Amino acid sequence: MATEYLYGRRAVVEALRAKRRNIRRLIVAQTVDKNETLEAAMSLARENGILAEAGKRERLDGWTRNANHQGIVLEVGAYPYVEIADILEEASRRNEPPFILLLDLLQDVQNVGALLRVAEAVGAHGVILQERRAAEITPAVVNASSGAVEHLRVAQVTNLVQAMKTLKQADVWLAGLDLGEDATRYDQANLRGALGLVVGSEGKGLRRLVRETCDFIISLPMRGQVASLNAATAGSIALYKAWEARGFG
Amino acid sequence: MATEYLYGRRAVVEALRAKRRNIRRLIVAQTVDKNETLEAAMSLARENGILAEAGKRERLDGWTRNANHQGIVLEVGAYPYVEIADILEEASRRNEPPFILLLDLLQDVQNVGALLRVAEAVGAHGVILQERRAAEITPAVVNASSGAVEHLRVAQVTNLVQAMKTLKQADVWLAGLDLGEDATRYDQANLRGALGLVVGSEGKGLRRLVRETCDFIISLPMRGQVASLNAATAGSIALYKAWEARGFG
Repeated sequence: MATEYLYGRRAVVEALRAKRRNIRRLIVAQTVDKNETLEAAMSLARENGILAEAGKRERLDGWTRNANHQGIVLEVGAYPYVEIADILEEASRRNEPPFILLLDLLQDVQNVGALLRVAEAVGAHGVILQERRAAEITPAVVNASSGAVEHLRVAQVTNLVQAMKTLKQADVWLAGLDLGEDATRYDQANLRGALGLVVGSEGKGLRRLVRETCDFIISLPMRGQVASLNAATAGSIALYKAWEARGFG
Repeated sequence: MATEYLYGRRAVVEALRAKRRNIRRLIVAQTVDKNETLEAAMSLARENGILAEAGKRERLDGWTRNANHQGIVLEVGAYPYVEIADILEEASRRNEPPFILLLDLLQDVQNVGALLRVAEAVGAHGVILQERRAAEITPAVVNASSGAVEHLRVAQVTNLVQAMKTLKQADVWLAGLDLGEDATRYDQANLRGALGLVVGSEGKGLRRLVRETCDFIISLPMRGQVASLNAATAGSIALYKAWEARGFG
């Protein structure tokens, strides 16, 4: 069975709160500055009967490949990916029109983490990721999302276009975030109702077939000299706009 | 005179386009994969009579302290900070009510860079940074902003509260982005007109005196389990909302 080492105080606390993984043990560095979040992790472990032990800092460095682990590591099983059907079910369980984020080949761990953190904050029912050639839910992504992905439903699919077609059959409208003359300004598009927001990769945007499978394309206006935005930034702004269109409900 | 080594293809191109620094020479690594952006940097250097030379990769590594320089470094003079008056003048030159971003002790280079990139994209007239204990406009920030800060007017002040009072005297309204019971939801606040948006530091938010000097506090709604956003993400969403309130003009 896969073993992963989650790290970072917030990420570890959220994994302990979410309780969706098989949790093996908590390791805290022998020399560590305690703070509220670290104490929260330790008391959550205690309450849930999870083994907590002190470890040498070098061992934590090794498990996390010298990431900024903040003196805390949680040994866990694999990330609990879900199916697209689970995401749609969550929407109907909450009695809300589906609100889904789709990522087309985003590569950068920080970008993926940042975007998933926003998806969680706006209450998206789930996220769909293209398998291979794209970032997966690694401990680095969990950390970059401040642990938010531990609470999110994330489906990994081998073919994003196929997943988009599945969503269309469930009456979900697909809005691609991209530049282009066919794009509607994001504040003028209809983002109410069942929505899948599709965000492209850094630099290259949406792949052609993914773009063509969208029902419409939205873009953020820009002025200034540089006229480009980071994919995660643009996606975050669009997610909030979509949530606003839904009345922040 | 200060010498800085800007790095990253986009950052170097924007510095060459903006022409606001004293530019000494362009150094391209001897072994490098050419792309459109690299070619653009080389032809901008040629057009402007800037010395371009090939350098050993290890030298570029040294100048940038092993940053991801993408095989290109621009040796330049110090960043051209401006005064608050210059920012206000830029607004009146464009015949627009002032639109200013203020950063209170943001530390993280990536966050500062990301936020400045958005400030440039929405056409903010300038940015005000607290000196000391906060990120300055280092080559790392220029890189993280994809070079956008080379086009932005940035003022560094020793006392942010004093700068806020100066803006108030110029009839600029100050909106602090923060949590709290006194906060207005960001889409319900009046963000039209002369506006200074004040963003606090990661984790700690606005300092007390800075918060009290704001005319009003705005916050982003959140649901979900984690209920926190990265300072740069929240600031980016608020900047776009403010620009929307100004009619994307």
